[in-house]
Amino acid sequence: MNIILVEPDEIQENCVRFVDHRAEHIVKVLRSERGDTVKIGQVDGKIGSGTILEIKKKYPFCVELRLQLTDNPPPKPLIDLVLALPRPIMLKRILSQVTALGVGTIHLINANRVEKSFWEASILERQEYRTHLLHGLEQAVDTRLPEVMLHPRFKPFVEDFMPDISDEYGSCICAHPLGTKVLSDVVDSVTDRLLLAIGPEGGWVDYEVEKFQEQQFSCCSIGSRILKVDTAVIALHSRLSALQEFAG
Amino acid sequence: MNIILVEPDEIQENCVRFVDHRAEHIVKVLRSERGDTVKIGQVDGKIGSGTILEIKKKYPFCVELRLQLTDNPPPKPLIDLVLALPRPIMLKRILSQVTALGVGTIHLINANRVEKSFWEASILERQEYRTHLLHGLEQAVDTRLPEVMLHPRFKPFVEDFMPDISDEYGSCICAHPLGTKVLSDVVDSVTDRLLLAIGPEGGWVDYEVEKFQEQQFSCCSIGSRILKVDTAVIALHSRLSALQEFAG
Repeated sequence: MNIILVEPDEIQENCVRFVDHRAEHIVKVLRSERGDTVKIGQVDGKIGSGTILEIKKKYPFCVELRLQLTDNPPPKPLIDLVLALPRPIMLKRILSQVTALGVGTIHLINANRVEKSFWEASILERQEYRTHLLHGLEQAVDTRLPEVMLHPRFKPFVEDFMPDISDEYGSCICAHPLGTKVLSDVVDSVTDRLLLAIGPEGGWVDYEVEKFQEQQFSCCSIGSRILKVDTAVIALHSRLSALQEFAG
Repeated sequence: MNIILVEPDEIQENCVRFVDHRAEHIVKVLRSERGDTVKIGQVDGKIGSGTILEIKKKYPFCVELRLQLTDNPPPKPLIDLVLALPRPIMLKRILSQVTALGVGTIHLINANRVEKSFWEASILERQEYRTHLLHGLEQAVDTRLPEVMLHPRFKPFVEDFMPDISDEYGSCICAHPLGTKVLSDVVDSVTDRLLLAIGPEGGWVDYEVEKFQEQQFSCCSIGSRILKVDTAVIALHSRLSALQEFAG
């Protein structure tokens, strides 16, 4: 936890009181004392510091702080993600990791090779996936929660929803081992927003690739090595970030 | 498992007999029949196919194949890794993931913020870490096992060992959030071998950064977002690969 996040409705007259894992973190990991300051951010708000007014170092832990939130969070990430719904345990890790790397919106969509049962997982409940997004923000020192959208049907997503949002993007990229383009062919401006679509284990089926291509997605490969989805998401995000930086 | 790997000493007169998870994979995942061929590679050897001579589809599974291993594996990866020993559960995942991405040698070294107990983990025994390397190769369709070297003392590694190997590399990179360079400053040839050093959770201490700099490592940052080690390893590897591809 490189920043402690507070929800807007937890703040009263610029003060906040922790009695949960955040209090424990301040006591046991940071080993702070009364009068010390710790790094604090407000979810979807500003970043700053909290000065410890009271601290109870024995269980149950309790810490009261006065906040000074003055700095803007990092700019909104330039990459949005379309992700064929992975198995729940992998999705948890991916949500934290891509939030740490920086992502604007995550569209979780259905695909032929997505197991039906994945759509019933409790991780798809807002209160549960939000925890993993917060972990990513706490790691990366950010406050901006990615938006998560669920699209349990492939065709309405690609045919009806995509045309509504495609104008926002300089490039839309469909990751595919047989893609004929490489990422550097399609990333040519540092300020463009990018939409990156990553398939399920086993990949997109041909029909899905065609549908993405109809929506002006470029099919890109990152080489012949086949990666698991959790590795591929980080690898593609990082390669795109490197190319954007280099273009700048 | 996108390729099934066999050890050299399992092959007799071009035939091999599986009675373990590989037999189960052929029966239950690939659902192969007698006469079918499956993708096979010999560890540290060639890639090709195996034709099923006999198959027992009920537990205990058994599959006999005749091998035709004719193709060379992918070229040796251009990136080697120096990694401050992570906690065992994270190391397992990192070993599989970087092997899938492609890595030549992995030096696991000590650092100030490495917990002493990590050096006693069973994952550091060859027979155990090898399993995770093999998973990475099976995923990426490769046969070339990365070399893993353990360096339980930091100073001898950086002062005595590094000078012996540094000639092999076009660039040596020390990942550091406060690094003043970016990766694109130090990657300028597609054919150079690269050595990438990644610190423990909490980062390298100043002394360690200085020692790396004495050995001509460039200190590079990938931005202000702080990443967990498992995310950082994939992110840095992928960014370097993207830049190498782009240079080519």
